[in-house]
Amino acid sequence: MAKNRLSVSEYIQGVLHSDRVILSRAITLVESTLYSDQLIAEKVMEGILPYSGNSIRIGITGVPGVGKSTFIESFGKALVDKAHKVAVLAVDPSSQQSHGSILGDKTRMENLASDKRAYIRPSPAGSNLGGVSARTREGMLLCEAAGFDVILIETVGVGQSEIAVKGMVDFFLLLMLAGAGDELQGIKKGIIEICDAMVINKADGVNQDAAKNAQREYANALHLFPEKQNGWIPQVKTCSAVEKTGLDEILEMIMGYRERMLANGYWDHNRSEQRINWLHEHVRYLLEKRLYQNEKIKNHLDQILPDIRSGRLSAIAKARELVDLFTEKSKGDK
Amino acid sequence: MAKNRLSVSEYIQGVLHSDRVILSRAITLVESTLYSDQLIAEKVMEGILPYSGNSIRIGITGVPGVGKSTFIESFGKALVDKAHKVAVLAVDPSSQQSHGSILGDKTRMENLASDKRAYIRPSPAGSNLGGVSARTREGMLLCEAAGFDVILIETVGVGQSEIAVKGMVDFFLLLMLAGAGDELQGIKKGIIEICDAMVINKADGVNQDAAKNAQREYANALHLFPEKQNGWIPQVKTCSAVEKTGLDEILEMIMGYRERMLANGYWDHNRSEQRINWLHEHVRYLLEKRLYQNEKIKNHLDQILPDIRSGRLSAIAKARELVDLFTEKSKGDK
Repeated sequence: MAKNRLSVSEYIQGVLHSDRVILSRAITLVESTLYSDQLIAEKVMEGILPYSGNSIRIGITGVPGVGKSTFIESFGKALVDKAHKVAVLAVDPSSQQSHGSILGDKTRMENLASDKRAYIRPSPAGSNLGGVSARTREGMLLCEAAGFDVILIETVGVGQSEIAVKGMVDFFLLLMLAGAGDELQGIKKGIIEICDAMVINKADGVNQDAAKNAQREYANALHLFPEKQNGWIPQVKTCSAVEKTGLDEILEMIMGYRERMLANGYWDHNRSEQRINWLHEHVRYLLEKRLYQNEKIKNHLDQILPDIRSGRLSAIAKARELVDLFTEKSKGDK
Repeated sequence: MAKNRLSVSEYIQGVLHSDRVILSRAITLVESTLYSDQLIAEKVMEGILPYSGNSIRIGITGVPGVGKSTFIESFGKALVDKAHKVAVLAVDPSSQQSHGSILGDKTRMENLASDKRAYIRPSPAGSNLGGVSARTREGMLLCEAAGFDVILIETVGVGQSEIAVKGMVDFFLLLMLAGAGDELQGIKKGIIEICDAMVINKADGVNQDAAKNAQREYANALHLFPEKQNGWIPQVKTCSAVEKTGLDEILEMIMGYRERMLANGYWDHNRSEQRINWLHEHVRYLLEKRLYQNEKIKNHLDQILPDIRSGRLSAIAKARELVDLFTEKSKGDK
């Protein structure tokens, strides 16, 4: 990274002038784990911060096979056709277990990717969740500063990623399929509780009736959940990403949500809370990094790890020993 | 807590003598967030550590409605009838969104709860996930030191809790129901990847055929996943917790797993890795706690929070400022 580094003002000016090459390099910069890169990234973020925030941030999740990439392509196209500028980012936890391909496959979303009014950022390979979500947030702000007014954040996974994405968006959309039988069986209860809308995809051809039935069932089921703090009752819509139907209704719903939440103050309240969480997440990230890079900690860890591993030493007592060592001895260390 | 505190050796001796009242009080002690309690809890944990580990730790998850508590009651009863001593603990993330009732409802598992060979610990109310999972681990070790040789850890939720439980058990079991239609639709891909077995519950009466079909489909589907590091291919079983059928086969499967993993070294390897993670999780917990309790940090936070909230200050730059302040000034502070 360091060798191709631009100056702080070159990054800021490039992003503010919607230079896609510089936008991409700025996102790469914030993703860098090098200390020297991070200091520059922080200055870049400070510089673009006043120009960020002017977008609708939409999180999109759903199980594999639900058609997320086709939906994002069709919905993104519908948005740019209405003069929006759309950026697509991904939070991908799949690398924890196996190597996932969310947004990583260059052949996906070809139509949207080639559209000048859209920007698609593949997710970095081999990255861990905490890091990705933190950097996705910064990537989102950079895209906003570059003039994108709708940010779509795609995620798939095992819960953590949905919570992370929920923590950085204005609207959270759960994509689903109509299935025969008990409609609520396989659904993650926690996800239903945090989504602002369900969209039943593939409502086309012979699936249309099933989709309508599922819509009715889910709409009834959603009434069983406690009312949200913001007064919003999650909506259930149907669409066909392939046939490009139902997309305008989804956009209208989201715009309606925005209007209501701006009016009742929840929009700003939610973003304020998210900024506070962002601070705490980054404190945690820096704090742990600094502890484990401390030479005295490293040496002490080398000594105790074999006995922690074998169970001879108690992990919680040694954890306190490490934290004591770090907070007493960190003065002057870097 | 402090007023009813026993001495360290009273806790240790009580637990080692399987005194249930003292076991419960010891678990309450490790759950306490008081600094003075935590210091005692650490000494208690150090004392019981050599006597822990002699159990099979089984994580059990599944969506609401799958029959987890009935399964745990029936399975637990089958275990005690085979001369096992069974402890049941819970990791409950539901308090993040709404107030859940996992193991909190006293009327649940009445039969098992009244059995002297079993011990059921309700989950603490209003606790956060990170804390609960850390303390569940300590509760598990205390139960082992008290002589329980099978620990069942129940969880339900949105993914984080499953990952947390997976990180502290030997065997992870996913309870499911047979549904008509596409069997794989609603399933959390991530959970399938981390489970060691699926059990299709409610395989009774008219559901038996559907359960058998589902068993076949899932067994086929599981072959599509990459082979696990330990050479184990996840099994699919059926059972009826209500009619108490299929439970012995599940126990045999788990015992077979244990035998194979002990033989190939994975059993110990996995537990060693879990102990290392336990150390890192507790370091994170203590580090954050110490930072936010630091007076200088508190004052600085008070000053900057309004501008973080409004978006005028950059969260990542201020996070570094806080961590700098903490690591430079923490000497001598408590």
